[in-house]
Amino acid sequence: MSTAWTSRYAQRTKNVRSSAIRELLKITQNPEIISFAGGLPAPDVFPVERFREACRKVLDTQSSQALQYGATEGYDALREMIARHTSRYGIKAKPEHVMITSGSQQALDLIGKLLINSGDRVLVEAPTYLGALQAFNVYGAEYVSVPSDNDGLRTDLLEEPLRSGPKFMYVLPNFQNPGGTTLSEPRRHELVLLADRYGIPIVEDDPYGQLRYEGEHLSPLVVLDRENLRRDSEYSIGNVIYLSTFSKTLAPGLRLGWIVAPPEVISKLVQFKQGADLHTSTFAQMVAYEVARDGFLDEHIKLIRRVYGERRDVMLQALEEFCPPGVTWTRPLGGLFLWVTLPEGMDSHQLFDAALKQNVAFVAGDSFYAPNGTTKEGKRHLRLNFSNAKPEQIREGIRRLAVAIKSQCADLHPDHERPVDQHVFD
Amino acid sequence: MSTAWTSRYAQRTKNVRSSAIRELLKITQNPEIISFAGGLPAPDVFPVERFREACRKVLDTQSSQALQYGATEGYDALREMIARHTSRYGIKAKPEHVMITSGSQQALDLIGKLLINSGDRVLVEAPTYLGALQAFNVYGAEYVSVPSDNDGLRTDLLEEPLRSGPKFMYVLPNFQNPGGTTLSEPRRHELVLLADRYGIPIVEDDPYGQLRYEGEHLSPLVVLDRENLRRDSEYSIGNVIYLSTFSKTLAPGLRLGWIVAPPEVISKLVQFKQGADLHTSTFAQMVAYEVARDGFLDEHIKLIRRVYGERRDVMLQALEEFCPPGVTWTRPLGGLFLWVTLPEGMDSHQLFDAALKQNVAFVAGDSFYAPNGTTKEGKRHLRLNFSNAKPEQIREGIRRLAVAIKSQCADLHPDHERPVDQHVFD
Repeated sequence: MSTAWTSRYAQRTKNVRSSAIRELLKITQNPEIISFAGGLPAPDVFPVERFREACRKVLDTQSSQALQYGATEGYDALREMIARHTSRYGIKAKPEHVMITSGSQQALDLIGKLLINSGDRVLVEAPTYLGALQAFNVYGAEYVSVPSDNDGLRTDLLEEPLRSGPKFMYVLPNFQNPGGTTLSEPRRHELVLLADRYGIPIVEDDPYGQLRYEGEHLSPLVVLDRENLRRDSEYSIGNVIYLSTFSKTLAPGLRLGWIVAPPEVISKLVQFKQGADLHTSTFAQMVAYEVARDGFLDEHIKLIRRVYGERRDVMLQALEEFCPPGVTWTRPLGGLFLWVTLPEGMDSHQLFDAALKQNVAFVAGDSFYAPNGTTKEGKRHLRLNFSNAKPEQIREGIRRLAVAIKSQCADLHPDHERPVDQHVFD
Repeated sequence: MSTAWTSRYAQRTKNVRSSAIRELLKITQNPEIISFAGGLPAPDVFPVERFREACRKVLDTQSSQALQYGATEGYDALREMIARHTSRYGIKAKPEHVMITSGSQQALDLIGKLLINSGDRVLVEAPTYLGALQAFNVYGAEYVSVPSDNDGLRTDLLEEPLRSGPKFMYVLPNFQNPGGTTLSEPRRHELVLLADRYGIPIVEDDPYGQLRYEGEHLSPLVVLDRENLRRDSEYSIGNVIYLSTFSKTLAPGLRLGWIVAPPEVISKLVQFKQGADLHTSTFAQMVAYEVARDGFLDEHIKLIRRVYGERRDVMLQALEEFCPPGVTWTRPLGGLFLWVTLPEGMDSHQLFDAALKQNVAFVAGDSFYAPNGTTKEGKRHLRLNFSNAKPEQIREGIRRLAVAIKSQCADLHPDHERPVDQHVFD
C-alpha cells in the first residue's frame, strides 16, 4: 500500500488542523521578538525552590507510589485538597466530585467525548478559547456563537440560541481568554436561570479565577446554579461542570487540571480517561500536592497577582501612551490577556506582518471565533498576553506594536482622520 | 433539567465501560492478598536515586523550560534519544519520526482517533491487550479476532480476515499481553508480507521488547516491513506504526510513551494530541531524559531483566510444583505475564472467587477477547503477572492458586480423573 496512510484516516481528521497559535509559537522562538502571542506564565514566578523540596520529599518518602501506576480519578490527597480549596468559593465539593486531568485541555477533550455527537451544536462565546474549539472540533461539534461585550457574554441575546437546542454551553466567566472580560454578577444569575429554564448544561472553564488583580471575587456559575436550584449542601446534582487547572498558578509543565462534576458525570469521564491515558502522572500529582500544601499555593498566588497585576498595568499604560486614537482595548480585572480592537477597515493579519517587522507578535483575533459559515469575524481584533514578558519588554513591545499600527493606519487613512470605535466586540 | 446528564451523553458512551481490571485493582488493595492481577512493575527496581539526581539537575539548570508549556511533539532531546535507541534495532528513526505520548495508552487513543470511523473493523489477536480494546471501543471499533498459539498470532489463519478489509491490524509481537507469547521469526515475515499484499497497516505495540530473559532479540515488524518494501535507509514511509513506552523500563508513574511513524502520520497525530492534552508533561519528559541518558537506561534494563527473569522462573517452577495435571501455561521469554489454561469445564470467574478466599488474585481471561458476538471466549484462561510480587510471594501465591484450582477441579471431577488439555489457546 506504499504510503497511502491518508486513505485510511477517519472522517474526523477533516475536523482538525494545527492551530494558528502553535504555528505562531515557532516564529516567536526568535529572541529578538517580543511576544504577546502565547498564554505562557512568567517563568520568573515558578516556585522552583519549593518544587525542589517537593521532589526530594516525594522521592524520599513515597517513591514506590509516585513512580507507579495510579488511580484514573487522580491522587486522593490532591483531590481532597482541590475539593477543600474549591469549597471556599461555595462549591461544596467532596473528593469524589473531583477528577484530575492531564491539563484543562484534557478536561475539554473528555467533555467532548462525553457529550458531543457529530453535528451537535455547542453554544460558545464570540470570541472564545481556541483550545476548546480544537477539542470539540474532533468530535464533529458545530457551534452557536453568542456575542460578548465588556461585561462578558450578552445574556440578553441568549434565549434564541438556547431555544435552538445546543448540547451544552461553554463559558469562561472570569478574565476570559481571549477577551479579558469578566461576566458581571447580574449576567451570571441570568445565565444559570436561562440554562435551567431551557435545560442546557453549562461547562464553566475557570483557569484564571484566582488571578484577580482588582475588585471582588464573583461567585462561579456552579455555585449560583446550586443556589438557583435550591440544592442541599452537597454538590451532587446540578447543571454545571466546573474546570480549573494548576497551569496558571503553579506550572503548566506539570499538565495538571481538574474537573468538578456530579458523581454520575465523573464516573463516566473516568471511563473515558482510562481509555485516553489510564491516569495523569502520579509523580506530577504528588509533587504538585507537596508544593501546594500547607497554604503555600495561597501565598504563591498573592505573588503572581502582584507580578501579573503590575504587568497588566504596564501594558494598559503603554497602550494609552503609544496607541493612535481609534484603537480600543479591554481592561481586564485579572487573568493573562487583553483584547484590542483596531479601527474600522484595518486587518489584524496585515498588522501581524507589519508587527513582525517591528519584532513584536500577537495572535490575530479570528482564531478565537467558532466557524459558523457567516462573515469572517475577529479581523479587527488581536489578543495580547501580559503575563510572560517583563515590564520593560511589555512597554517596548507595545511601543513597537503602536508603530506597526500607525503604519497600517497611515496606509488606510492618509489624511490621519480616523473614526473612533465604541464597540469593543463586534 | 435536574440531573438528567445521562440524556445528554453522546452515543459513544455506550461503547465504554470501566475495565474489569480497574475494578479488580480495588479488591487487590487489601495487603493480605497476593495479586497477580495488575501489570505493575516492581517498585523495588525503580531507580529512585537516579530520579532524585535528575529532578535536582532539571530544576537547578532548566526549571524555566521544565515547568513551562512545551511542544506537542515532545521534548527534543528525548525524541532524539528515543530515535537513537530505536535505530539500534534497525528502525532508522529520526527525531521527527518520534512523538511523545502520555503513556502508550494515549498512543492507542490517538491512533483510534486517527484511523477508526464508527463501525470500522480492527484486526486483533485473540487474546489481546485490554487497554487497546478500551481505547478503540470509544471510536466505535468492531473487531476481527485471529487466534494465537505459542508462536503468537496464527498467520496461517490471516488471509481471510485480511481479505475482509479491516482498517488496520493491532499486534504485540513480543511477550504478548496477556499471552506471554512471542511471534516467531517466520511468522513476522509472513505477517508483513500479508499486510503489504492486502494493504492493511500494522500498529505494532512493543512495551516489553527490551525485557527479554532468554533467547535472541527478533526484528520488530517495522524493520521487516522496511526490508520487505526495499525502502532506502530513511524511515519515511512504510506500513507500520511502532509504539513503546518507559512504563516498564523506568516508571509508569511518569506516563511517558512514544510513537514512531512516518512524518505524515506523526503530523496528523500531533494535531489530535494538541486537542487532547496540548503536550505531555515537560517536567516528566526532562526528568526521564536525565534519568535515561549516558547509558543509564541500558544498564538499568539489565537489572530489570535479572529481577523479572528470576520471578518468571519462580512462577514457572511453582506452577510445575503445585498445579494439578490438566492445567497448562505459556512459558514467556520476556515481559510481565503468563497465561494459564484450566482443564475443560472449569471457569476462571468461579476460580477467581475461590482464589480470593485463598487471598490470591488474577485476571480472568475473557477480559482479553474482543467482543465478537459469538461464544464467550477465554473462560478457561487466566493472566498471571510475575513482575510485581517478590519471589517468596510468587511461590506462596501460586501455592494458594493451586489450592483454589484443586478445589474447583474436585467440584468438577469428583473422581479426580481430569482430561489433559493440549491447546494453550482456544
